[in-house]
Amino acid sequence: MTAPVPADVISRLKAVLGEGGWSEDPQRIAPKLVEWRDRWVGQTPFLALPKTTFEVAAVVGVCGQAGQPITIQGGNTGLVGGQIPQGEILLSTERMRAIREVSPLDDVITAEAGVTVAEVHAAAAGVRRRFPLGLASEGSATVGGVVSTNAGGTQVLRYGSTRNLVLGLEAVLPNGEVWNGLKHLRKDNTGYDLKQLLIGAEGTLGVVTAAGLKLVPVLDSRAVAFLGIASPEAAIELLARAKDAAGGAVEAFELMGRLGIEFAVKNIAGTRDPLAGAHPWYLLAEFASAEEGSAERAMERFLADGLEAGLIADAVVAQTQAQAQALWAIRENQSPAQKPEGATWKHDVSVPVSQVPAFLAKADAAMQAFAPGCRIAAFGHVGDGNIHYDVLRPDSGSDVEHSARRDEGSRIVHDLVASLGGSISAEHGLGAMKTAEAARYKSPVELAALKAVRQALDPGRILNPRVLF
Amino acid sequence: MTAPVPADVISRLKAVLGEGGWSEDPQRIAPKLVEWRDRWVGQTPFLALPKTTFEVAAVVGVCGQAGQPITIQGGNTGLVGGQIPQGEILLSTERMRAIREVSPLDDVITAEAGVTVAEVHAAAAGVRRRFPLGLASEGSATVGGVVSTNAGGTQVLRYGSTRNLVLGLEAVLPNGEVWNGLKHLRKDNTGYDLKQLLIGAEGTLGVVTAAGLKLVPVLDSRAVAFLGIASPEAAIELLARAKDAAGGAVEAFELMGRLGIEFAVKNIAGTRDPLAGAHPWYLLAEFASAEEGSAERAMERFLADGLEAGLIADAVVAQTQAQAQALWAIRENQSPAQKPEGATWKHDVSVPVSQVPAFLAKADAAMQAFAPGCRIAAFGHVGDGNIHYDVLRPDSGSDVEHSARRDEGSRIVHDLVASLGGSISAEHGLGAMKTAEAARYKSPVELAALKAVRQALDPGRILNPRVLF
Repeated sequence: MTAPVPADVISRLKAVLGEGGWSEDPQRIAPKLVEWRDRWVGQTPFLALPKTTFEVAAVVGVCGQAGQPITIQGGNTGLVGGQIPQGEILLSTERMRAIREVSPLDDVITAEAGVTVAEVHAAAAGVRRRFPLGLASEGSATVGGVVSTNAGGTQVLRYGSTRNLVLGLEAVLPNGEVWNGLKHLRKDNTGYDLKQLLIGAEGTLGVVTAAGLKLVPVLDSRAVAFLGIASPEAAIELLARAKDAAGGAVEAFELMGRLGIEFAVKNIAGTRDPLAGAHPWYLLAEFASAEEGSAERAMERFLADGLEAGLIADAVVAQTQAQAQALWAIRENQSPAQKPEGATWKHDVSVPVSQVPAFLAKADAAMQAFAPGCRIAAFGHVGDGNIHYDVLRPDSGSDVEHSARRDEGSRIVHDLVASLGGSISAEHGLGAMKTAEAARYKSPVELAALKAVRQALDPGRILNPRVLF
Repeated sequence: MTAPVPADVISRLKAVLGEGGWSEDPQRIAPKLVEWRDRWVGQTPFLALPKTTFEVAAVVGVCGQAGQPITIQGGNTGLVGGQIPQGEILLSTERMRAIREVSPLDDVITAEAGVTVAEVHAAAAGVRRRFPLGLASEGSATVGGVVSTNAGGTQVLRYGSTRNLVLGLEAVLPNGEVWNGLKHLRKDNTGYDLKQLLIGAEGTLGVVTAAGLKLVPVLDSRAVAFLGIASPEAAIELLARAKDAAGGAVEAFELMGRLGIEFAVKNIAGTRDPLAGAHPWYLLAEFASAEEGSAERAMERFLADGLEAGLIADAVVAQTQAQAQALWAIRENQSPAQKPEGATWKHDVSVPVSQVPAFLAKADAAMQAFAPGCRIAAFGHVGDGNIHYDVLRPDSGSDVEHSARRDEGSRIVHDLVASLGGSISAEHGLGAMKTAEAARYKSPVELAALKAVRQALDPGRILNPRVLF
């Protein structure tokens, strides 16, 4: 736990924030101290609610002078505890709500940190454009949060992570200075890219206050299919064929195991299995293109080819927008559908795409050896090699016992990932949860360089001090 | 000029490099001391020719201990003098020639620093994939160079700069340690992205020794058109319409002024004007798609729409591969075609796409006021807002006089770019040429942060000491 916040720091913060700009009310603060998986509970004596970049700078300035650490929170959808304070000042961006500019000619939207991803989607649609970041949590996740954590989601295969979707940034650096990097430029090759350094830094190198986000054309030709397949090997082979059939038009390629489908049907009201029989694995594929009928034709070619090659056992193509949404709902409910099933060890890992089958086979064997009877729900963005590998307690097992073995079990999974050249955090970040893992799995050479960068920019370790390394 | 290299440093370098791994022969070294625009002439007493990453590490280690600066050179195609030594040790990557791996399943090719971009293209084609970085200099430009300078080129609109095309890196850091970040991962969210920090760092934060480069599908449906248009405003409007017509399939969108076409016809053998009449401006547009005939149909829709809207005055569509190449040759010869015309002030700038017309109008007026009769050849990647804005001496003017006013003239152009929210180096980098401009145009807040990062990683300022800031 971080040291108590001195009274004079509190009073100076109140002065710079003004009325409505802060809270010490435990009830007002309470929702910000827990996250949805209930794995983290925090505490803070003081909630800063700046409305402007200038106020953020003032808060960071006051805290910097006093050596007072700050935890930063956006939409509180993070899954690795980085946004939950443990005694620090909590800085929430919830009042920074302006969409400052929407420019269809430059294909950029400039939004403040507290704007949600869903609101960005809506504003983009208003000028017939799209912001291609799709998250299950997009109704709550904020611009500041997705930028600071380099969020991924379901469209990374085509458009890249948030890192690829940011044209400009405004941030308050650890020294309290405002960096205005809100350019509309597609190209700017004038030294190290400070923007790229802040993206994914999980708030340790600056408080992101606004971002210029890249917009892409709306693609009206869309095809969504749900496939039953025999194995992850088939999924990888089908991915290569999908890319060939659709060129750059593969928008999503999501893998799910049978158990995840069963959980969704059982635990999420209104869900039905789209295919008649049961299959060991499933794929959700979406193609999108500008030319009318083009994605649909590419999907037809892809499915015909995959069926002929014996790689697809069964498939259904959405005929309506509602059907497409129903298929996507199965994918997006993979995680919520586990909740009633009891304790889970969750892993957000990536391996080279070619290694996904090996990872799944070896991990399953290792988990069954370590925790006989455990139930494995694996799903994820197979086009990115990103698997959400969730290990649930045995059907009639004890939640407490399963949870108690989490660290040991996760160690096995993460060791395996590392041995396959993978990452122990594909898209969720390290947060406060995976700092020990970072020390274990990152190369010492790299870790030393990254720590030197942090030390250079935040020598007082003011911002998110318990996060990363 | 950097201080003389001590004899004991030379002898230690010879020892670690071994026979064939170095040269002191002025004739062997000479070609590496000049670049093709003849603006920079360098000198060095010692050329290090490491063949392995281990040897690069040894060189950096020896120099680090001795405080001996190093200049790094790849294919010597840089346009801002960063690769030309001024008394430092010269480290060339020319012997690091291995393509270590080509993986079509992971869509990655791992090539050592000295492999040329053209060789990467050939290796990718061998597995029916593409590395989507297109440069006029690709026959000489190397992997280490394009990564270190974050090279751009003609396909950035669709695929991004080199920054977006690197999956993994191997580099020797300034402390002489080898960082192996050659992962095949599409996603790895475990702290600051060291790879992104090194990309575009122009060799100041590490010597890139190998890179894992992203491959994309081969797109067989291609359409190339050459358009005569009235104005840059029309170009911007057509860009938006092209994106709508073709979705993500716009592969290139290049603007050229009339004078550049005339130079090409006059000075490049075999070039003919593709259109019957003269037009103030021209566009070269390429669409590419996977489905047979799809790009061609999108081009038809785009051209019909643009002609009907009065935005296109005349257009020709390439009917054969040879015709497409001839159209592209006009674009790629824009710079070489200027050479016989005399002294030029060259500028590689970017502005927001929406500001391209304003930039061109204001810059032309300012240049004619400052240097009456000057000839302006503007061309570039209008889809990225990136203009190569070249100001040639008047037809019968003096090269010496024109060159003498270069800095003053460029200051006017760069001030204008800055006032429009642009960048003074869109894709060529800062090198040794634009260090003063960086100090002038970059925000002090940003510059201080970037300098702190450099100081943290290379406190002895060993690597490319005269480059950047």
